[in-house]
Amino acid sequence: MKSLLTHLECSKTGEHYDADVPQNLSRVGAPLLARYDLSRGPRSPRELAHKPGLWRYSALLPVRSPEFVRDLGEGGTPLFPADRLGEALGMPHLLIKEESVNPTGSFKARGMAVAVARAAELGIKSLAVGSAGNAGSALGAYAAALGLEAHIAMPKDTPASIVAECRSFGVDLALIDGLITDANAHVQKGIKELGWFDMATLREPYRLEGKKTMGYELFEQLDGHLPDVIVYPTGGGTGLIGMWKAFDEMEQLGWIGSQRPRMVSVQAAGCAPIVRAFEEGTEHAAPWENAHTSASGLRVPRAIADFLILDAVRKSGGCALAVTEEEMFAAWRQFCALTGLFCAPEGAATLAALQKLREQQLVGRDERVVLFNTGSGLKYLEAWAQASGT
Amino acid sequence: MKSLLTHLECSKTGEHYDADVPQNLSRVGAPLLARYDLSRGPRSPRELAHKPGLWRYSALLPVRSPEFVRDLGEGGTPLFPADRLGEALGMPHLLIKEESVNPTGSFKARGMAVAVARAAELGIKSLAVGSAGNAGSALGAYAAALGLEAHIAMPKDTPASIVAECRSFGVDLALIDGLITDANAHVQKGIKELGWFDMATLREPYRLEGKKTMGYELFEQLDGHLPDVIVYPTGGGTGLIGMWKAFDEMEQLGWIGSQRPRMVSVQAAGCAPIVRAFEEGTEHAAPWENAHTSASGLRVPRAIADFLILDAVRKSGGCALAVTEEEMFAAWRQFCALTGLFCAPEGAATLAALQKLREQQLVGRDERVVLFNTGSGLKYLEAWAQASGT
Ligand SMILES: Cc1ncc(COP(=O)(O)O)c(C=O)c1O
Ligand SMILES: Cc1ncc(COP(=O)(O)O)c(C=O)c1O
Repeated sequence: MKSLLTHLECSKTGEHYDADVPQNLSRVGAPLLARYDLSRGPRSPRELAHKPGLWRYSALLPVRSPEFVRDLGEGGTPLFPADRLGEALGMPHLLIKEESVNPTGSFKARGMAVAVARAAELGIKSLAVGSAGNAGSALGAYAAALGLEAHIAMPKDTPASIVAECRSFGVDLALIDGLITDANAHVQKGIKELGWFDMATLREPYRLEGKKTMGYELFEQLDGHLPDVIVYPTGGGTGLIGMWKAFDEMEQLGWIGSQRPRMVSVQAAGCAPIVRAFEEGTEHAAPWENAHTSASGLRVPRAIADFLILDAVRKSGGCALAVTEEEMFAAWRQFCALTGLFCAPEGAATLAALQKLREQQLVGRDERVVLFNTGSGLKYLEAWAQASGT
Repeated sequence: MKSLLTHLECSKTGEHYDADVPQNLSRVGAPLLARYDLSRGPRSPRELAHKPGLWRYSALLPVRSPEFVRDLGEGGTPLFPADRLGEALGMPHLLIKEESVNPTGSFKARGMAVAVARAAELGIKSLAVGSAGNAGSALGAYAAALGLEAHIAMPKDTPASIVAECRSFGVDLALIDGLITDANAHVQKGIKELGWFDMATLREPYRLEGKKTMGYELFEQLDGHLPDVIVYPTGGGTGLIGMWKAFDEMEQLGWIGSQRPRMVSVQAAGCAPIVRAFEEGTEHAAPWENAHTSASGLRVPRAIADFLILDAVRKSGGCALAVTEEEMFAAWRQFCALTGLFCAPEGAATLAALQKLREQQLVGRDERVVLFNTGSGLKYLEAWAQASGT
């Protein structure tokens, strides 16, 4: 089925923008959201393309021609009952969505698979991104597959395996003394002066579209139901906002009603701007000073779509909460030993958060809760050495 | 569909063995092969279970009850056209089977997913393996998922990330001053004295069954065809023998005729017992002295199923060939930059081999060739630093 993409819409003002030319932020500096003619969309998942992975949702994705798709195996990740972990927590319906079996070992591949294909389709040749690490690697992978130029900046203390992986794709990589915000600033010069295209999450409209497929997959994998609670590690927030957008689309498609899972946004205590804003009841989140955490994907001091994250969390009846490094490390060891997944620290953070949610009785023992493991522990060997004391 | 497993058969004498009790080698010290009532098997892939991954072939796998299966996402890996790499080689029909998106980042997960589930079904509680690394990690993962005990030995110079991953599963891990053969010897004491079950490849009959699914997948992904040539990195040989077994089963099922792909076994010049035996025309391969290569999965100086590897290679009209470290390193850099996969050195070795096959005109430019990338480069950071000069 062909893409049903119609236009882009400003997430602040609702103004329409042409989707068939390259776009970044709207006139008022807000993210643009892709809109589709959902009245012609699949009436049920059974009408989707019969193939594995993310491209099965191609009607609901922005890429118009398969010619630009390089399918490296993105999406279609397992959702499985965490029986031993569930037993340990006294939660019989605990589930894990396992994103580390994506290309480049993280869920970031979903966003870049779609965004890079769409960029190629729109004739863009040079892509640039400032990244906490995994997004840069994922951009590098799809740029290499398509033969596009990639300019990437990431903090110099990004885990070594992520740096190695990214370099293997033959990209232009700058290691920056600073955070993802500084890395983003670093590539602005090339964007302004050399015409590189800005692929920063939510400044580019289509990474979100790749990420939203996680929401569609949950529905299909639970045989037409959504879970009660989704616990998601949050940096820029694209994963969480993407799923929230998927649920809205699914309602418009007639697949579900107005019910939604409670969305729980997990951050690290050393970088928790969304949690602070949630607690203070503000619409936007003030930038976090001196951000630090070994879950490098969570080291995002300022998120351009902060208001979209906070809105989803609040409307869903969920919450935002922070976990300390010690809580995350303890959860990390337990997660691996009881599931057989060498998860990322960001994934471990969701387990630490769930333990708090249970203590505070914000989640019932019989609820169907999904923890997202967003990446592979193989990408965090320095942090794992600390967490495991080896 | 239920498992059609009927019995085990000695690969040397053809004698039958009971498949419903734990078994290792046959009376004459040869591998046992799982046999099925294929007359009742699926007449076409369309009759297989409609689910993603390896368990779609459950009728042709040895696990009788789904209760023992912990699906971590094994199998169902992408097969994709390597267009940019194909262009560089002047081969328009070059394909890559991408196994690094398996759990634990290597194709070894296929074998262990099946073998550990079957062991659990047969009531075994303690599993042991000597491994070059990836098999140990994969055993650890499924043992953790099922709550079984795992005793693992691997060379002390196994890549650090594989060691970390394996440890994360809470297993008993010994690092040995020696090779996989020494690691295997190390666990024999526990196997003899403490009743651990030997999970060494082809000494245990069901890892092969998990691996054979790669052969079935090729057929399905090529819309009912097999490729002309399969280039496979060979250590113990389970991947290659497994696919060869799958093709025989597919013929008995009536899916294919007697045609077969040419099987090319690739080894490292520093450890090439199969290549030497192939060239010398012997049935068995003498052990390789002073084995060394940074493709640690290929550092297997003696393979118990050497005669099965050699038989498949010869009957298929294929060949066995070795690549030097330098050739492998150069191929590694090219592979990553032109595909977007941070492949394992074992995967890179297949590209180096293909370059030789082309030079020697053993493969035509229009042939459909499949290179197997058997693992993730994230598991080989020391070797990658060497290969990339970083
Ligand atoms: C492994 C991992 N998990 C979670 C996140 C946070 O995701 P998001 O930016 O979509 O909130 C990142 C971001 O880099 C990541 O790499
Ligand atoms: C990444 C990788 N590739 C290839 C091999 C060789 O596979 P086999 O033992 O099936 O010949 C191994 C074995 O450890 C491996 O880990």
